[in-house]
Order: sequence, then structure tokens, then C-alpha cells
Amino acid sequence: MSLHVLTGGAGFIATNLIRRLIDLGETVFALDDMSRGRPDFWAPLQDQPRFRSAIVDCADLEAYRTALDTTVNDGGIAAIWHLAANSDIPAGIADPRIDLQRTFLTTFNTLVLMREFSIPTLNFASSSAIYGDHGETVIHEDIGPLEPISNYGAMKLASEAQIRAAVEAFLPKANVFRFPNVVGVPATHGVLIDFVDKLRATPHRLDVLGDGTQRKAYLDVEELVDAMLFIAAQAQGRHNVFNVGPPDRGVTVREIAEAVRDRVSPGAEIRYGTGGRGWVGDVPRFRYATDRLAALGWRPQHDSIGAVRRAVDQIVAQELGRR
Amino acid sequence: MSLHVLTGGAGFIATNLIRRLIDLGETVFALDDMSRGRPDFWAPLQDQPRFRSAIVDCADLEAYRTALDTTVNDGGIAAIWHLAANSDIPAGIADPRIDLQRTFLTTFNTLVLMREFSIPTLNFASSSAIYGDHGETVIHEDIGPLEPISNYGAMKLASEAQIRAAVEAFLPKANVFRFPNVVGVPATHGVLIDFVDKLRATPHRLDVLGDGTQRKAYLDVEELVDAMLFIAAQAQGRHNVFNVGPPDRGVTVREIAEAVRDRVSPGAEIRYGTGGRGWVGDVPRFRYATDRLAALGWRPQHDSIGAVRRAVDQIVAQELGRR
Repeated sequence: MSLHVLTGGAGFIATNLIRRLIDLGETVFALDDMSRGRPDFWAPLQDQPRFRSAIVDCADLEAYRTALDTTVNDGGIAAIWHLAANSDIPAGIADPRIDLQRTFLTTFNTLVLMREFSIPTLNFASSSAIYGDHGETVIHEDIGPLEPISNYGAMKLASEAQIRAAVEAFLPKANVFRFPNVVGVPATHGVLIDFVDKLRATPHRLDVLGDGTQRKAYLDVEELVDAMLFIAAQAQGRHNVFNVGPPDRGVTVREIAEAVRDRVSPGAEIRYGTGGRGWVGDVPRFRYATDRLAALGWRPQHDSIGAVRRAVDQIVAQELGRR
Repeated sequence: MSLHVLTGGAGFIATNLIRRLIDLGETVFALDDMSRGRPDFWAPLQDQPRFRSAIVDCADLEAYRTALDTTVNDGGIAAIWHLAANSDIPAGIADPRIDLQRTFLTTFNTLVLMREFSIPTLNFASSSAIYGDHGETVIHEDIGPLEPISNYGAMKLASEAQIRAAVEAFLPKANVFRFPNVVGVPATHGVLIDFVDKLRATPHRLDVLGDGTQRKAYLDVEELVDAMLFIAAQAQGRHNVFNVGPPDRGVTVREIAEAVRDRVSPGAEIRYGTGGRGWVGDVPRFRYATDRLAALGWRPQHDSIGAVRRAVDQIVAQELGRR
């Protein structure tokens, strides 16, 4: 039984990870600034003796340190799962300071405190956004050049760079997970919940940004969490970098729009915009190599369209529950 | 005649670049926080009508903005040459906040202000340190993975990432120069001046960090400035990334130590340490591909050992002048 600290601990991915860690017998200390996190994700955990939480802005070094100081009698922190980041890419494009603070400085501070508190393992939620637009090229972990086209991707790459230097200087182990698009519940943002909510507001029409040809890989959040735990347990190096995703070419926005329409409002008309990108900084298509993770021994059970369909069902149930 | 802003404007490279820009008929506004810059580098320029300077910490956005505000009646800033960075790699390893502030946040603020002031061109001094240790592999600009092993390299990579995203979002043009080791005068830091000063303090002995087998490429600062101006004038893309360096495999620390010893104190004993690295974060060997720059039409006149020998002569003269 070890103590695991999660940043971004009231977010979509953390909520799923916390459940798994507690099931595995671990103790969890979840931190979140609640800028995008949701206090209600913590509510069902409050009776759980192996769960603690604190509202902390990890971009504020003093506050973050004070939070970790409360663990001094717990025999040490085994790992930090650094999931905190600004997940609103367009907001980061409008104001790059949001990504600086929430995506990069949270990482920087995490590393400062891991050194101070002698925390041996960092598990970091990175992103396919670090790669930028490689067109039809299959993207393996060692590809170059790395040309992120959003501030979000830039600050994830900055985070990875600082983590790599920390491994050289003091950090015993870092596992870097490069996520694709992740779907599932409890959904807080992303294309699926956007489409579901739009169709509930205007059941006859679904307006889609871009021409619908954007193609991306999607992974079910439960599978993502499974992969993270698998890598953390199995990867032997000090600096382990893995693409995590389905082995397929992904699905198009058109396929997603149709899947949501068919499930939520079968008669609706889907209206597409123009251009292959939904917004500045959005990578229009993406092919991920996942053979490094397959070689380690992990493969997802759902492909992209399967993950999307499953998530649409879950999100519809979630959104109906909110009525 | 255009206005060029230089950050790190009282540094080694800026001092050489300012002279060239003024010779070309440009106007220069040099900014420096004087943390490592030297006021005496500006002294000989003070009578020059096309030179202005200000002591400003570019990591302080308000101060940086105030400095640029003083140019409002000058018809706009044509370009920022962003040279400010923490050049003391070991200091950055001891305290990563130094690289965060001086190397990365200066870049971040530069981009914020380029947007506000509609400055069309960024010329950025990046570094071979972004690549990390690729052993004997020849490093071209598009190589992966990028695994910087110093905080300095990490924050240069973070800077490059943020610049790339800025080109996507608003910045008309960015030229990114990845520097090798640069030598020449006025020397302020680096292995040559270290060796010269050590030998002047103890003329019979030169202690060298590491076993002397580290091999790196060196470029004369005047050639570096020439290459930067060439790329800025010739490269046609919106995001131009160039390795700048000699076409050779570089010289070893042993060759450098001997060159300095032969010039400064021919009878001295050179004592080597152990290990292939001088310090944590130092990349022990390095092979640079420079064919992209050669294809654009620029090649250096000196090879690495030629640049080192020339610089040793210049540095000895400089240091004798300080007696």
C-alpha cells in the first residue's frame, strides 16, 4: 500500500484512475485547482478511507508544497501522477498564459517538489499534440521534428523536455504517456459531449466545425487507465515514453457526428463547415504507432470507432442523468 | 533602415551582432538584465546614433513592454533577435528556476509582446542542447527523439515549441538558429576562457573536467553572426530551423586543452579527470548536419579547430588587456 498523488485529481481521467488505484489497494491524495475539475467527482469518494483530496493550484509552488507537507507522516509518496493541464485548447490559443500556468508550470513545480520530497516516480500525461501535423506519416515515439501547433502541445512538449532533464539530474523514474483523444465518462469536454449537448439543444440540426474529414484516434478512458497502470508496472527504463492508443487510423469527425446523431437524434441534419481543421492548433489527421506498447504487452480491446460508440452511449446516459 | 530589438543585448553574441547590424545601416535597441551581460560591451556604442540600450529583465513582462513602448514613434520594430538566456548550464542544473526565468520565460514574453506590437519577425538563438545525446549519429534538424539532458536544453526546446505554436497562431516569421559551441571575443564564459584563466592562475598545471574525450563542434562568433544574417535574409519559409555550425566532427577537450596550453603556458601539465562528461547535462560528443544551411548557400570558413585556435589568440589578447 503506497501513497499516490494525483494532480488534476478532479478531472475526467483522474476520476477513472483513482477508482482503479483504490481497487488495487493504494492510497490516493488528489489535488485540483477546480479551474476545470469538478468537486462532484470527489463526492462519492469521501467515505473512502484511502482517499484524500485538497483544492490546490499546482502552478503555485508554495501551495503545492504545503499540500505535500501534509503527507509527511505517511511514509513517503510513491509516485506523482501529473494529470493537471489546461484541457481547453482554444482557450490556450486565445491566452497562452493559461497553458503556461496550468500545463507547463504545474509540471515544473511537480519536478521541483519531487526533488525536495524525494519522490521516486513521475507518471506524466503527455499528448499526441507534441508531435504537430505529420500528415499521413505513422507517428512513432522517436519521430522528428516535433512541431506542436497549439500552445497546449507546446507546453506539453516543454513539460516532457523538463522531465527528461530531471531524469538526467535527479529523478529516478519517469513514465511519459502520450495520449490520443480520450473518451468516456464522466465527460467534461471534447467533441462527443459537444455534439450530444448541441443535439439536445437543437434536435434537428448538428453544426460541425470543419468539413468533417479530420481523422483522429480515440481511446476509451478505462483502457487508457489500464495502459498507464500497465506501463507503470512493466516498463523497466528510467525514462519510458509510450504512445497510448488504438492500433487503427482513427475515425473521422463525420463518423463521430453520425454516431452521435444516430444515437441521440436520428433525424437530425448534420451541417459541416469548411476546411480540414476545426480551429487553429487542431491537427487534422493523425496516425499513431503503438507497437512499442504492444511489444511491452498491452493492446486495447476497442478500436477508435468502438471506443466512440461506447462513449456516446455512456455520455448520453450521463447527460440524461443531469436533466 | 529598420529597428531591430536584441534581447541579451549585452552578451557575447549580441555584441558582435550589433556591430554588424549597425554596419548594415540598421538601428538597434539592445535590452539586457545584466545578470550575465556586461555594461562595458555597450560603452563603445554610446556615441553611435543608431544604437540605444536599456537595462530590462525580459522575464518581467511589464518591464519588457515598457521598454518596447519607448519605440512607438520609430515606425515599428522590424524584428526581435531573442538572444537572452541563462548561459551558465551548471547554474541552471543547480537551480532550474534560473533557466525557467532567463531562458524560457524571456521567450514566452517575447512572443506575447510580438503579438501586441505586431512585430513580424523573430530571430531566435536556439541550441544544439535541445537534441540531447545522440552518440555518433549525425544530427539533422528533423531528428527525433528530442531529449535534452540539461535544464538549459529543456528550456530552449520549450522556447522552440512555443515559437512553433506562435507561427501557427499569429507570428508571420520565425528563424530558429541552433547554435553549436560558439567561440571568440569578447569572451565571457566557456571552456576557452576557463582554460586561459586557469593557466594564468597556475601556469604549471591545467586541471580538466572529464577525461578529455568529449568532442564538440565550435564556430567562430563572427561566422555565427554572418550565418544568422544570411538566414534572416535568405530563408523564405515562415518557420525556418537551421543547425549552424562547422561541417566537421568537432574537436576534443584534449585538443582544446593542448591548444590553450601551447599558446598560454607551453610547459604546463594537463591533468584530466575521469568520465566522458564534464558535468551533468553536458553532452559528451556531437555530430551536426549542416547541409540544410549549406544548401541555402552558407558555409563557414573555419573548421572547429581553426575557430578554437583563432579564439584562443583573441582571448589571450583580451585577458592580457585586463591585467
